[in-house]
Amino acid sequence: MKNNNRKQEIIKAGTSLISNNGYNATGIDSILKKASVPKGSFYHYFQNKENFGLAVIDKFAHDYNNMLDKFFSDINFTPLNRIRNYLEHIIEYLTQKQFTKGCLIGNLGQELSDQNECFRQKLDAIFLIWKQKFKACFEEAQKIGELNTDILPEAIADFFLASLEGAILRAKVTKSPEPLENFLKILFSKILTK
Amino acid sequence: MKNNNRKQEIIKAGTSLISNNGYNATGIDSILKKASVPKGSFYHYFQNKENFGLAVIDKFAHDYNNMLDKFFSDINFTPLNRIRNYLEHIIEYLTQKQFTKGCLIGNLGQELSDQNECFRQKLDAIFLIWKQKFKACFEEAQKIGELNTDILPEAIADFFLASLEGAILRAKVTKSPEPLENFLKILFSKILTK
Repeated sequence: MKNNNRKQEIIKAGTSLISNNGYNATGIDSILKKASVPKGSFYHYFQNKENFGLAVIDKFAHDYNNMLDKFFSDINFTPLNRIRNYLEHIIEYLTQKQFTKGCLIGNLGQELSDQNECFRQKLDAIFLIWKQKFKACFEEAQKIGELNTDILPEAIADFFLASLEGAILRAKVTKSPEPLENFLKILFSKILTK
Repeated sequence: MKNNNRKQEIIKAGTSLISNNGYNATGIDSILKKASVPKGSFYHYFQNKENFGLAVIDKFAHDYNNMLDKFFSDINFTPLNRIRNYLEHIIEYLTQKQFTKGCLIGNLGQELSDQNECFRQKLDAIFLIWKQKFKACFEEAQKIGELNTDILPEAIADFFLASLEGAILRAKVTKSPEPLENFLKILFSKILTK
């Protein structure tokens, strides 16, 4: 295994374990066992567990941003239909996963925001990037007359992000798509209207 | 210290530590140290850590239900103003706490839903009780003509619960009341309308 591949394997194994069990409950030993790499490797690539955790978050955020850009730059759909496509994708994905895992950024935000200021700032910055992408989409929807202009795009984006995170959490606890489906229904019938 | 007092002290200390650090990261030793009770006491009152965790959740849910009943049975206010009073109370409380801790049921739902089916079922049942209280309030609002009847009270209650949990999470990560204030504003201007 080449150096960079091995590092990526460790991050991949860690992402899976942290998604399932949280950051604190994931030990370095279990990560290395899952990645099938020798124990000494960890400190070759990462200074410490925190440094590794931040690398896991960076990789997840990088991949998630690419996914968001795929949906939000798709000019075959109107801005509000891009939002709908993204939500339907999330519902389909979480249904496939039987509502396990939830959102890694939301999970770690819940777990670590009061424990580690470095993690909190990174997670907050990632949420801000997502919010900016949603905001740009709602701005475009207002510009072409697809969305009423009585609420600022910034406020709608903030509300959308928080409510989506809440619906993902509720789906995880109740093991059903219902909270996500209710969110989509009320969002499009009450908030994202002309 | 009387027996029941000592048990309650252990639960109180555990609630505070679990609220700050999560369930997995809270050790029995740190709970007993915080409660200032001897180590042997723990297993006198609780079979194991899981049994203790469930007692912490029960106590929290009991107190939270009393708080909800106080707001939702207040006939000095219309049903929608009871919802508003409850939300304003949460914003005030979390602002005082500088947006630390968040919601214990949401936190544990996030942390434990995929790890422990017993916890998941208990947390889900508590969310259901809250949802029923919100539903009854929205039903009453529809009955007296304060709220339009185009969405079922059940769906509004489900949406309200999920979005509130999401706004509490976002406030915790971003350390600001903004997500909660945006939620309140959009809720009352777009969803809870005649």
